[in-house]
Amino acid sequence: MTAYDLLSLNVVCLAGGVGGAKLADGLARVLPPENLTVIVNTGDDFRHLGLTICPDLDTVMYTLGGVANPETGWGRAGESWRTMGEVGRLGGPDWFNLGDLDLATHLTRTDGLDAGETLTAVTRRLCAGFGISPAVLPMSDQPAPTLIETMTGEILPFQVWFVRERWQPAVRRVVLPEDARATTAVIRALEAADVVIIAPSNPFVSIEPILNVYPIRALLEDVPRAVVAVSPIIAGQAVKGPAAKMMSEMGMEPSAAAVAACYGHLIDGFVYDSRDTGMTAEDGLALLCADTLMTGAAERERLAREVLAFAGNLVG
Amino acid sequence: MTAYDLLSLNVVCLAGGVGGAKLADGLARVLPPENLTVIVNTGDDFRHLGLTICPDLDTVMYTLGGVANPETGWGRAGESWRTMGEVGRLGGPDWFNLGDLDLATHLTRTDGLDAGETLTAVTRRLCAGFGISPAVLPMSDQPAPTLIETMTGEILPFQVWFVRERWQPAVRRVVLPEDARATTAVIRALEAADVVIIAPSNPFVSIEPILNVYPIRALLEDVPRAVVAVSPIIAGQAVKGPAAKMMSEMGMEPSAAAVAACYGHLIDGFVYDSRDTGMTAEDGLALLCADTLMTGAAERERLAREVLAFAGNLVG
Repeated sequence: MTAYDLLSLNVVCLAGGVGGAKLADGLARVLPPENLTVIVNTGDDFRHLGLTICPDLDTVMYTLGGVANPETGWGRAGESWRTMGEVGRLGGPDWFNLGDLDLATHLTRTDGLDAGETLTAVTRRLCAGFGISPAVLPMSDQPAPTLIETMTGEILPFQVWFVRERWQPAVRRVVLPEDARATTAVIRALEAADVVIIAPSNPFVSIEPILNVYPIRALLEDVPRAVVAVSPIIAGQAVKGPAAKMMSEMGMEPSAAAVAACYGHLIDGFVYDSRDTGMTAEDGLALLCADTLMTGAAERERLAREVLAFAGNLVG
Repeated sequence: MTAYDLLSLNVVCLAGGVGGAKLADGLARVLPPENLTVIVNTGDDFRHLGLTICPDLDTVMYTLGGVANPETGWGRAGESWRTMGEVGRLGGPDWFNLGDLDLATHLTRTDGLDAGETLTAVTRRLCAGFGISPAVLPMSDQPAPTLIETMTGEILPFQVWFVRERWQPAVRRVVLPEDARATTAVIRALEAADVVIIAPSNPFVSIEPILNVYPIRALLEDVPRAVVAVSPIIAGQAVKGPAAKMMSEMGMEPSAAAVAACYGHLIDGFVYDSRDTGMTAEDGLALLCADTLMTGAAERERLAREVLAFAGNLVG
């Protein structure tokens, strides 16, 4: 396909936190906004200090809005911590650090939800506030919490395991809800998609929670769409977070090939990092070798162009 | 009574916001902490931006804790407004201004309530954080919202009328809940009280909501206790807030005498300001003329001593 054709593709990106947000940002720098929809994991949303906190939605919004903290990849640039410092002094729970600017997002969201707004609607409103043009959609308007069953048999809410316990307890399995339903906006976006890009997010706790939401997996299996995944594993390591550690604990080799095998027949193409020499995949899976480490805005955009060109070829 | 005897009185102070907090602070400067309980109006509590906000409890806590804003009488000294500025920018409701330090109180409280703590317990914890020794008790652990019926027949939640509408809509009547129940801690404090001091708070929207909570009024009517009220009206004006305006609207003369008449036989003594010349009251009501304008800490303490001496004489 020509570059002009690529820009006319309808693209949906499935994204978790930091890695997903970076690729979504790259895509947003390339595609016309009306041709890009980012569907975001809400499995790690939780209620804390009375507020509804959506860590992956926030990371995607702050990244697309250009207000993300460039050091951490999550949270806001120029953040201050006055309120949480005082919460700690007053004996409140301060293990999940909420900056003063970040708090404004949670307060505005919780206010909207309390007033009966859907998470989709309040996210649209927040995106407008951050000047974001592409559609950013929560996978579901109902809570669909991801739980972590540890090797000791304990079941932990995701953020308790991820943040409070610093993802140290070994994982036996990820427990996903059985009754999660996609929003109408998500279903329409996927029905209209030429290409679905699975961002380099954790397959087990970022992407699988999205695929688990009915009927998202079935919509990805529909023939016309090309589904392309980008590996979150580079040279056997996760760029950030627990993906590689979880793979080992759950009996997999932490490798790009193992990630591709997890997605199986759901994907038509797989993008792996040039550091992963000797990558092989099942017959019928198209492969693209690329530099997937998005260290800056230029790298995000370059990877987005390469992934789009690769996916465009698969569409035909 | 001698000064020594006065300090052995068990004193309960019924308080609303700023005026109540100031007299409570004066009493706290005079009495041993174990002899003072402040029972605070929670009728103007509300849920806002996902948080449970208790304006009168907060004003009392901040004042007794020495962290109140000395300019406004409510809110915290040295406050900043970073979060609310961003809430406003994001299109969230910013008519009720919550400072960054103040927010920590609401977050910690809401977290405790969400975890099943009572308002009494979470208030005790917050008071410990502010280094407050006397007991500060919410009148009830259940919501007991005060509503304002305006002259146009509209029913407004208290804070909507008070803050958002800047108490401008004329008041036809104050609507109080029929099923509000006092906590065990409140009942025990009143049963043990030698003296009950009704602080110079708004009789209609600060004190009456407390008296309306079963069985607080009945406990005040019990014979052994001396009940003394301090006038919130000085020279026909409220020091702060809508008391005088409400009295006019509800067909009363805005005067100290009218406040005393409102409390009727519930009170044994009434403290009015020296600016209210010509104060008269019904037979059997003891009167004390004092300088009731508490402009600083020394004035709070002086008024507290005068009120205690007056009440002590009524106990016998």
